[in-house]
Amino acid sequence: MPRSARLHLHLETPRTSPAHFHLTEEAWAAAARRHRALARRLRVTIGWDGEILDAALGSADLMIDSTPPRERLRERAPRLKWIQTTGAGVEGLLPLDWLPDDIVLTNNSGAHGPKAEDSCTMALLALHARLPQVMANQRDRVWRQILTPPIAGATAVVIGFGDLGQAAGRAAKKLGMKVIAITRRGTATRLADAAYPATRIDRVLPRADYVIVASPLTPLTRGLLGASRLALLKPGAALINIARAGIVDYEALRGMLERGALSGAVLDVFDPEPLPAGSPLWSTPNLMVLPHITCDRPGYADFVLDRWFENFERFLGGKRLKNIVDRQLGY
Amino acid sequence: MPRSARLHLHLETPRTSPAHFHLTEEAWAAAARRHRALARRLRVTIGWDGEILDAALGSADLMIDSTPPRERLRERAPRLKWIQTTGAGVEGLLPLDWLPDDIVLTNNSGAHGPKAEDSCTMALLALHARLPQVMANQRDRVWRQILTPPIAGATAVVIGFGDLGQAAGRAAKKLGMKVIAITRRGTATRLADAAYPATRIDRVLPRADYVIVASPLTPLTRGLLGASRLALLKPGAALINIARAGIVDYEALRGMLERGALSGAVLDVFDPEPLPAGSPLWSTPNLMVLPHITCDRPGYADFVLDRWFENFERFLGGKRLKNIVDRQLGY
Repeated sequence: MPRSARLHLHLETPRTSPAHFHLTEEAWAAAARRHRALARRLRVTIGWDGEILDAALGSADLMIDSTPPRERLRERAPRLKWIQTTGAGVEGLLPLDWLPDDIVLTNNSGAHGPKAEDSCTMALLALHARLPQVMANQRDRVWRQILTPPIAGATAVVIGFGDLGQAAGRAAKKLGMKVIAITRRGTATRLADAAYPATRIDRVLPRADYVIVASPLTPLTRGLLGASRLALLKPGAALINIARAGIVDYEALRGMLERGALSGAVLDVFDPEPLPAGSPLWSTPNLMVLPHITCDRPGYADFVLDRWFENFERFLGGKRLKNIVDRQLGY
Repeated sequence: MPRSARLHLHLETPRTSPAHFHLTEEAWAAAARRHRALARRLRVTIGWDGEILDAALGSADLMIDSTPPRERLRERAPRLKWIQTTGAGVEGLLPLDWLPDDIVLTNNSGAHGPKAEDSCTMALLALHARLPQVMANQRDRVWRQILTPPIAGATAVVIGFGDLGQAAGRAAKKLGMKVIAITRRGTATRLADAAYPATRIDRVLPRADYVIVASPLTPLTRGLLGASRLALLKPGAALINIARAGIVDYEALRGMLERGALSGAVLDVFDPEPLPAGSPLWSTPNLMVLPHITCDRPGYADFVLDRWFENFERFLGGKRLKNIVDRQLGY
């Protein structure tokens, strides 16, 4: 195949992103060996912090980037047809009014399921066993037995039932819990015992022993769990957020934990990240602060590239790509 | 039925035992209401710290006690036929040379399964996610991502495959792990992918990503995991003990955790309990100290009494009791 017939793929990474997101020379070389035939159809450039971005955009057909360039994109990238994001959430790119109609945007939804399922299982059981308190007691060398029954039969309300929400649902069902899904339209799903549309959330929250936040951050979900909604939770309920910080009012949540209105919380997502050392969340009672680890796994970049190659095969075959971000819904 | 035809049941509790073990007037009254017909066959005395023990033994036919009297028992309790222990482990009563041949001893094996399964699931996932380190980082307000893959495919070696061991096995299988059971005779069980006799333990330990100690404490298991056996574990392996402290050399374990030879441990059992405030275990890196909470649930005394009534029905019907402690094996 003549070099000119190859498609130009540009990989772009900000050096400030977590290391497991980095699309390095080594990661690309290894992926190209795993997908040799497809890789031969490509000419690849690898950039950092936008240093070669403008030159690359001039000829790029395809791009993988955690924060794609949004300014005058069509003009700067006349041949660009497809942008793949490195992560699953694209809330930083909304609204998608910068995205030309003939460029498709795909995300990594689905990349996080198995790890998220483990993490939700752990978070549910840790909150149920009052582990944050037990570990605070360990720190103070205090032997105090807090006995809790098995978790089976408790109710988990899962907000958002996409990739992460279904993982949360599998975790809860595996533990014998009852699962209520809150989705945009309230569409029933086999994994959940019941499903309600987001408009009914105020009626569902009082039933939760555990709330798991697993929805994308969109204009519709931003601030969804504000102070007044959190106040609907029953005394002693607990909350897990593996999605995005902007969905939950952390100040209100912190107040409830401080006065014992909730039994605990596990937060894996913050705004900004890393969580600043001065944040009061670090030392809030019964709050477990996880540093954005519940859904990602080591070798994530390899995983991203493997999934990209699968989609690239569809692209070459003229098939509809997987994980296309809906311009209206924003996920 | 004339009062004299009733059987005399004596309940005895040391006040120093954990509160959920206490066989109180209230617990008895509630259980008697749940088992009205059977309760009518009984005359009941309730004692604390042995205050009325000798008088009670004089006429008792049946007894529930966490630490039954061992001295001159036949002489002091001429009518006694059956002793039920409150707990599952009876290592404190071994050897059973004090137990007259015509008195049957039953324990509470089987009482702890569902709760132990939840606890093992949590402990496995917490160790896999390096949660002790993550929570130490939280305490220090340090944001450091430790990424781990899903736990599926990792190997759990479960030592002892009775009530607790099978609960551990179910926990590991539920997480997609491989389960190797170590039992006295190495008898295969459906729950485990493989089973080996205790004599083969040295060959099996190097295969463990996680070791779960779940056997009774007997002369055969005391010190089973001494320093040289622990040294057989692969670097980065982790250990969970939900059974009895005497099975594992905690000093050797602590040394391995201090120098990072193991990735972590969850200990729920100590000798003595409560763990003294001066113990170095409280602050050993990557060690989670749980205050004997993994297998017990609230309402344990109610549960004990309900199970006792089931066995009492068998007793009245002349059937073989459940959970008879084997005099030779000691569990």
